[in-house]
Amino acid sequence: MKVSFLKNDIELIESSLFSYLNNDNELINKLFDSMRYSVDAGGKRIRPRFVLEFSRLCGGDDDTALPFACALEYIHTYSLIHDDLPCMDNDDMRRGKPSNHIVYNEDTALLAGDALQSLAFEIMSAPETVDRAGASKAVRCINTLACFCGAKGMVGGQVIDLENEKKEATYEQVLECDDLKTGGLIKAACVMGAILGGADDSQIAMAEKYGKCIGISFQIMDDILDITSTDEELGKPVGSDLENNKTTYVSLFGIEKCRQMVDELTDEAIKALDSFDDDSTALKNIALSLANRKK
Amino acid sequence: MKVSFLKNDIELIESSLFSYLNNDNELINKLFDSMRYSVDAGGKRIRPRFVLEFSRLCGGDDDTALPFACALEYIHTYSLIHDDLPCMDNDDMRRGKPSNHIVYNEDTALLAGDALQSLAFEIMSAPETVDRAGASKAVRCINTLACFCGAKGMVGGQVIDLENEKKEATYEQVLECDDLKTGGLIKAACVMGAILGGADDSQIAMAEKYGKCIGISFQIMDDILDITSTDEELGKPVGSDLENNKTTYVSLFGIEKCRQMVDELTDEAIKALDSFDDDSTALKNIALSLANRKK
Repeated sequence: MKVSFLKNDIELIESSLFSYLNNDNELINKLFDSMRYSVDAGGKRIRPRFVLEFSRLCGGDDDTALPFACALEYIHTYSLIHDDLPCMDNDDMRRGKPSNHIVYNEDTALLAGDALQSLAFEIMSAPETVDRAGASKAVRCINTLACFCGAKGMVGGQVIDLENEKKEATYEQVLECDDLKTGGLIKAACVMGAILGGADDSQIAMAEKYGKCIGISFQIMDDILDITSTDEELGKPVGSDLENNKTTYVSLFGIEKCRQMVDELTDEAIKALDSFDDDSTALKNIALSLANRKK
Repeated sequence: MKVSFLKNDIELIESSLFSYLNNDNELINKLFDSMRYSVDAGGKRIRPRFVLEFSRLCGGDDDTALPFACALEYIHTYSLIHDDLPCMDNDDMRRGKPSNHIVYNEDTALLAGDALQSLAFEIMSAPETVDRAGASKAVRCINTLACFCGAKGMVGGQVIDLENEKKEATYEQVLECDDLKTGGLIKAACVMGAILGGADDSQIAMAEKYGKCIGISFQIMDDILDITSTDEELGKPVGSDLENNKTTYVSLFGIEKCRQMVDELTDEAIKALDSFDDDSTALKNIALSLANRKK
């Protein structure tokens, strides 16, 4: 009898993430090293966890959901690599480690980001993925992710962010930016998990609502932590928003009101889970833990 | 009665290309301007034409094939935008026009490239595309393009190209680079057209063979034209390979032998068309015109 080990979700996700990053062509070793370097940089793996949890909540199995969970993390990772480049935020450090382009040079970092985006779509459409999920669910998830990560999703949010940095932005502009930039992939993760688990359209809409609330409250928490945390705890210098004169939720409303907004959005996210019949404790706990995170 | 106008293929492709680039959110107008600028830069539209012609050869209809044809051109366009960036080839001009980052700055050019890649996958998986093609063919085309454009395809070829520029490369290294970098998308185009038209596996393999031969002969022609053409005719400075001490087919074998290789590869490509029952004159003519091009 095959002994199966209970892995926690992050181990499950990470082992799957690296399983798609094998390469036996030595001419492109450096590219794969660079891709693995940033995928390995850790983080909360929050987007893939949302795929798994929504899939479970709707009756899906982990093996079907895992390639889609990985796709989310590859897209997130590519966006961080490109975001750190000198022509963007010009950040030398990411999560306490030198940024990809510092280690592998700008050209390779650019291409590693490009290749991670392709890889996301490659694994969602791979024959073994489609055999499990079915072509129709697979293609619907591909479309969801493509929409939420592209010009009218995450990348559009980046563009708005670049514009907001140059001026005193309004609340609406900051909100639009974050709903696309941070919210895009979180909404995609929740919706894709729900699709894969077999949710109906009204449940899929509620998964998106949960994702939208979590995405914005996540960003408000980021703004709060940029003021209240320490360099050590956060893994990057705090106070950078203030230094860059960036309009944030905190600069608009102050910390107390922001804390209240986080709590309200978290409540709203948790309320959206009422539309699902099964036990949604895991997703409720993730929402609460994000609202109370210290980093 | 609706009057229908006979458009030539390039008009058909270009009208479809721009139909996916509409935007009504003024906060991201600049991003869409930048995307349209490079899509508008012309070129031979050879990759989308291969999708259409292979689809037709195998009995497919143009309306089904067009979104996939556009996807190829978006991926090609994103690769050119990223290729021209200062951290890559640092080219200020492309097809006789200032490069994207010269007009829109590096940050927007980077993001426009990223968004064009997402858009390619978005339109291949869009509900109206999938309704026509069927989910199973759509997902197979998505996988084909993702594989041929990613780390083990076009992007891998770029990495090998960057390495080859730093040394005296061997024939094998130059060939591997071009088969991935130039050949990747051309093979993808031919294979996707064949899939959409309903070709069987042996015909799909022959479509890939045609694409492989065309891809390499296309690159050899590029190397020849870099020596024998003029700046005006080519739309960019000739002699750049020589100036950069780049190992090319011409530097390895001389012009006469290269000319012969182009002819042999073109013959081989045309021979691969024998596997198809219908009239393949159009694809034969494209092969011949590419072998005799002046730019």
